Amino acid sequence: MRMYGNWRSAAAFRVRVALNLKGIPCEEIFIDLDAGDQHAPAFRAINPQGAVPALFDGDGPPLTQSLAILDYLEETHPNVPLLPADPRERARARSLAQLVACDTHPLYVPRVRTYLMEEYGLPKERMLDFVRHVFVTGLTTLETRLSTEDGTGRFCQGDAVSHADLCLVSLWVGTGIFGVDRGPFPTVGRIAESCLSLDAFARAHPLKQPGAPAP
Amino acid sequence: MRMYGNWRSAAAFRVRVALNLKGIPCEEIFIDLDAGDQHAPAFRAINPQGAVPALFDGDGPPLTQSLAILDYLEETHPNVPLLPADPRERARARSLAQLVACDTHPLYVPRVRTYLMEEYGLPKERMLDFVRHVFVTGLTTLETRLSTEDGTGRFCQGDAVSHADLCLVSLWVGTGIFGVDRGPFPTVGRIAESCLSLDAFARAHPLKQPGAPAP
Repeated sequence: MRMYGNWRSAAAFRVRVALNLKGIPCEEIFIDLDAGDQHAPAFRAINPQGAVPALFDGDGPPLTQSLAILDYLEETHPNVPLLPADPRERARARSLAQLVACDTHPLYVPRVRTYLMEEYGLPKERMLDFVRHVFVTGLTTLETRLSTEDGTGRFCQGDAVSHADLCLVSLWVGTGIFGVDRGPFPTVGRIAESCLSLDAFARAHPLKQPGAPAP
Repeated sequence: MRMYGNWRSAAAFRVRVALNLKGIPCEEIFIDLDAGDQHAPAFRAINPQGAVPALFDGDGPPLTQSLAILDYLEETHPNVPLLPADPRERARARSLAQLVACDTHPLYVPRVRTYLMEEYGLPKERMLDFVRHVFVTGLTTLETRLSTEDGTGRFCQGDAVSHADLCLVSLWVGTGIFGVDRGPFPTVGRIAESCLSLDAFARAHPLKQPGAPAP
């Protein structure tokens, strides 16, 4: 497979982890988001949204949207499974994943941050208030659910990694970048650390990808 | 089944259509979002996120996040199917659905609009510039994809209704509420009208639900 991605992209990170866990070889092609390569006609022809990741599997058309890609990988490469077998457990894992991938992450991506600064004339620090508010809102719900619901185990759903964990870790890594206090979220942190102790997550970490800043 | 919803919720609308199409009887319980009922302890105990929809199937715990609920319904009530059988076609339908449900809708929900007005002191009209920008961005990508990709048929993915259409219509209905010019989006409009001509969509329309303003 072949993925257009970027070291910083939380969505590409999720897919990279899934590919690692399932043992699917994939070449990653770096799209320079800072240089605006995602808006170049060549990339818009791949994904009119101008967003990464975009995944190619053989000669088929590009696959976009990280959760849709995760489901595609699940259906075409069911080993190692990244969703539970039981429909209710699957629904819980998906709900936790979407709490991040629908209701949190899309609110703080560059196109939103740029709009707030350019159209509303907000200085960067004031814009970041919104970003941190979005993180705290998402993390608070995650923490409440993970610390009170029966389904939580070593990972978000029981003791096996699922889509929920891929999304949780992609959010957790962002707390460092945006200076979000991790203190109030011990259960989220415990699960994130459990994940990051696994080679498939550690190798996929944004800061270990080409283009990332030196540590 | 039993769903906590609200006439205005785009996410509850999607689930309502799926229930109608699949012929699943469901009682809908009205959560008054204007009165803040979603933040009351009784509802937070159901969904700590304070968001609708929340669906109960028998005695199980609440199911949340509209796309997770759609997948649950698909897995537990496979007739009428709302995803294609082919993995690539499923991935395309899901990608189009997530373009709405992840990258568009969560950016203009009340909690974001309130933040922009209260924390940044923006007057309502200026706040609505962002909402309309979000709609136009999402609709532009949808229009480009639906008008150029081979998979498009009478509906988003071929000639059968899928999750993509449920999401597309939930966005389309919002263009009226927020005064978004529909002119540049003829393919999106054509598919939305195809959907709304079906009884399952028409009956689920926000303005036909209890609590909606009189026409």
